[in-house]
Amino acid sequence: MKVAIIGATGQTGSVIVQALLESTAPTFEVIALTRPSSLQKPTVLELQRKGVKIVSADLGGPQSALTETLVGVDVVISAIYGGSVMDEIPLINASKTAGVKRYLPCFFATVAAPKGALCLRDMKEDVLNHIKNIYLPFTVVDVGWWYQVNLPKLPSGRIDYAAMETADGIAGDGNVPFALTDVRDIGSYVARIITDSRTLNQMVLAYNEVLSQNQIYDLLERLSGEKLERKYVPAEAIEASIAEIEATSPSPDSMEFVTLAQYQYWYSCCVRGDNTPEYAAYLGYLTTMELYPDFEWRGFKSYVQEVLDGNGKRVYEHLKDLPAASTDKKASAMDTAV
Amino acid sequence: MKVAIIGATGQTGSVIVQALLESTAPTFEVIALTRPSSLQKPTVLELQRKGVKIVSADLGGPQSALTETLVGVDVVISAIYGGSVMDEIPLINASKTAGVKRYLPCFFATVAAPKGALCLRDMKEDVLNHIKNIYLPFTVVDVGWWYQVNLPKLPSGRIDYAAMETADGIAGDGNVPFALTDVRDIGSYVARIITDSRTLNQMVLAYNEVLSQNQIYDLLERLSGEKLERKYVPAEAIEASIAEIEATSPSPDSMEFVTLAQYQYWYSCCVRGDNTPEYAAYLGYLTTMELYPDFEWRGFKSYVQEVLDGNGKRVYEHLKDLPAASTDKKASAMDTAV
Repeated sequence: MKVAIIGATGQTGSVIVQALLESTAPTFEVIALTRPSSLQKPTVLELQRKGVKIVSADLGGPQSALTETLVGVDVVISAIYGGSVMDEIPLINASKTAGVKRYLPCFFATVAAPKGALCLRDMKEDVLNHIKNIYLPFTVVDVGWWYQVNLPKLPSGRIDYAAMETADGIAGDGNVPFALTDVRDIGSYVARIITDSRTLNQMVLAYNEVLSQNQIYDLLERLSGEKLERKYVPAEAIEASIAEIEATSPSPDSMEFVTLAQYQYWYSCCVRGDNTPEYAAYLGYLTTMELYPDFEWRGFKSYVQEVLDGNGKRVYEHLKDLPAASTDKKASAMDTAV
Repeated sequence: MKVAIIGATGQTGSVIVQALLESTAPTFEVIALTRPSSLQKPTVLELQRKGVKIVSADLGGPQSALTETLVGVDVVISAIYGGSVMDEIPLINASKTAGVKRYLPCFFATVAAPKGALCLRDMKEDVLNHIKNIYLPFTVVDVGWWYQVNLPKLPSGRIDYAAMETADGIAGDGNVPFALTDVRDIGSYVARIITDSRTLNQMVLAYNEVLSQNQIYDLLERLSGEKLERKYVPAEAIEASIAEIEATSPSPDSMEFVTLAQYQYWYSCCVRGDNTPEYAAYLGYLTTMELYPDFEWRGFKSYVQEVLDGNGKRVYEHLKDLPAASTDKKASAMDTAV
């Protein structure tokens, strides 16, 4: 099976590529669609060394070139930056013309209302509607919230090297449950999903566990032996922060937009309670829990222990060269969006 | 089961009410939500005589009053004019607050892409997204195209009394199939759907037959013994007509909007081929054909015979008091939308 992926060097894209390369039954031929200016980047050359076919693709270029690239490709996966999803439209049109059998638009985030809950999700819905308009076979994959962006720091500072809390404190009373996934499991989920006829033209929620912020704090306290400060932020305060940024209509490539997305994820998951298997089922999602009961996902507890043992890894390491002032904010807000 | 309906005197609403009243197992208590100014209309008084509970409801009034009206109601059905669906939002919010167990937004039309194919469908998608945003249990029911608006007139004039062709001729080569339903069957379909747990939070396509325009012309020729002129209209000509009206951005309550909708239905069903069970399945619809294989729907052939025998009935009779110049256009375009 021939799989082309855009965003292969990003956080989500790289775990998908890794899982496809490691799969033995079936095996996958993996093609990284790479913008011409990035062909010589070390991360791209590293992919090539691992066996990925690097193909130059310019989303803003002529569509005939994109179509030619995609002829014979079975599955196209988009894992580009969530704020740039409208750039996918030429790739989607080319996939239709080339006869691609399944297209995975860049979702890979938390479950949320199709419109009105997350600005990033709103744009993804527009992309999905375009796919449906041209009758292109698709699968939407959402993955809940990552373990890796939901671990608060400890007073001792011993897990600062790996922890990256998405939100600044605990929303509301902290008891709203949400779905969580280890970022490293996403690739294996995707490898199963794209070879499964049951998931064609469906939305799928891939997730490992369902926990509330309080449960996460409890677990970390228990395993670390340290006491965490719980800074509860009322829902109204988050609503006010969202309204304040929304009033400025920030552009998707601005820092303000990233901050807005961060607040909205927090509000959607921890106040509205959108990111649950129940709401996903209501919206029509299938879940990996029903589809693949045998899947051996990483537990949240073992992930926490791994971090406490010094074996964790901070996500978005590729963002560490950004100006220091913006790194944390950008990295934490982009969380599941890339 | 307590069912409240808005638009109970319209073409779709009245067949739904009729079916609910006639049902014996289960039985339904039917409530017609009626605007205060219409309470004394003859059609409303006639409903009351038949056993429908008439309740005054003002969609533009205070939401608390709407909520009070809906407490204890199991199912709310909207069958208002397709161009006014955004007026449903207060009713949807009130249904959520009142604890309504299932809400049927005003769809009841052909299957089409969620966005970009039909202006009427675009607005319905916004309504559905609002329902999903507030997590209200729902069922979307689409019904394909009505038999009653797809019968061309005969040269002899003998079926002019009942025929009402939606479109002015045959689109493209006339071979694109689309789903059709007898308007009189819609009520019985809805009665089944709203008591079926499998259809909760789902989209359902209720349809009887799948035919192309050429097949309809063939059948009518065969049964009538008359020869029909086939006026083929190229897809490009319909596209041009749509573009011309779209350029004026007509308001949903204008005659131009109705004409635009008419052209778009024709294009969507007969050129794009949106209105099929296959595309419906792709979009995630369940179909009545799978859900209710025992359902005894009226065949298109027997409907045509009925009309030839002089026993047909023109739909939208309630529009006959409109100024003569606009009646035909308005009636044919509003087809499945009311």
